[in-house]
Amino acid sequence: MIPVITAFDRSPDGGKGLARDTRVRWALEEAGQSCDVRPVSFASLRQPAHLALNPFGQIPTYEEDDLVLFETGAIVLHIAERHNGLLPVDAAARARAIAWMFAALNTVEPPILERQTAVLLESDKPWTAERLRSIDQRIDVRLGQLSARLGDDEWLDGGFSAGDLMMVSVLLRLGSSGLLDKHPGLAAYLARGEARPAYRRAFEAQRTFNTRPGPSE
Amino acid sequence: MIPVITAFDRSPDGGKGLARDTRVRWALEEAGQSCDVRPVSFASLRQPAHLALNPFGQIPTYEEDDLVLFETGAIVLHIAERHNGLLPVDAAARARAIAWMFAALNTVEPPILERQTAVLLESDKPWTAERLRSIDQRIDVRLGQLSARLGDDEWLDGGFSAGDLMMVSVLLRLGSSGLLDKHPGLAAYLARGEARPAYRRAFEAQRTFNTRPGPSE
Repeated sequence: MIPVITAFDRSPDGGKGLARDTRVRWALEEAGQSCDVRPVSFASLRQPAHLALNPFGQIPTYEEDDLVLFETGAIVLHIAERHNGLLPVDAAARARAIAWMFAALNTVEPPILERQTAVLLESDKPWTAERLRSIDQRIDVRLGQLSARLGDDEWLDGGFSAGDLMMVSVLLRLGSSGLLDKHPGLAAYLARGEARPAYRRAFEAQRTFNTRPGPSE
Repeated sequence: MIPVITAFDRSPDGGKGLARDTRVRWALEEAGQSCDVRPVSFASLRQPAHLALNPFGQIPTYEEDDLVLFETGAIVLHIAERHNGLLPVDAAARARAIAWMFAALNTVEPPILERQTAVLLESDKPWTAERLRSIDQRIDVRLGQLSARLGDDEWLDGGFSAGDLMMVSVLLRLGSSGLLDKHPGLAAYLARGEARPAYRRAFEAQRTFNTRPGPSE
């Protein structure tokens, strides 16, 4: 059986690839694996059937034979451990690649998500401009540190890995914020990630999915 | 060589166990492993010697033979993969335990850290009270979902795992917030985690470390 992942019935971004199923689609493409995608409406996310797959009512989930997984990081790591293409063979290099996955999700993404919350949920508040300046400063510190480590290297630690997949996916969220303008090395790194054939295929698949004709569920 | 981890020279919490080295100490105790702890002053965190270990200037780091790791999640996973006591043997159960690690760090902890940022960095702002109400609502949604999944079980998925270690560590951050009062099942889960002998040993070790006599570095 090929794995089944869940995705928003229609992604709120209209197919820009920012919903987290894109990260799983990308990992599967890098690993040369296919999947079926089951759409989940927003109303269904909080229903028992979906909460049985993910207790926090989020997408994506991953079903493969008897295994049910949630959390994008765990799903990508599961795929990376079972197929070639996303983790080095050397044990120490493999542990470091996993460290970059955690760094992307736990150190770089949190202030970026806090920015998104401020823009989406608090944009009508009198304090938003001042808070955004503070959040952007925290994001900029992280980008500066990441850029310093990357230097002129192509990827974060040797060859492309699941750590790069996750870091590029996180940086993609900065989109039109302009926050990458000060860090041309990171902008180039992001462009290298987006140029990978596996990413292109994953991006096109989610775009086609999110812009398919017909009523939503 | 036994591994060397870094910790704050003096934790800002004065030894309450909330600095992230406690999570690594706990994992090592569950695995029956010891470590050396090297203190790092706040000034040293941003110096080249420490940035070589962790490009984001955080603690803990982990050094073992030629391997240097950063990110608490990656370090705990590394320990869990190499020793008994933190991950089930069955492959599917193991993948689910890792999913709970990611859920703790990526779904439950982010709004808790956002609350901490609001309290520590923005407590003097006119908007803090209103924002705290909004953040607390988001935390409460996550706690309700977690409590529903846990139900009357002892741990999140079968026996105690690295997923529980991380989730308990995240819930410990709620401390005196009162946010756990509505969720007695989670309060009991947290108490079960804190009662584990390995946690007690890790807690005492960090408390002794953080309250040791002598000048700070």
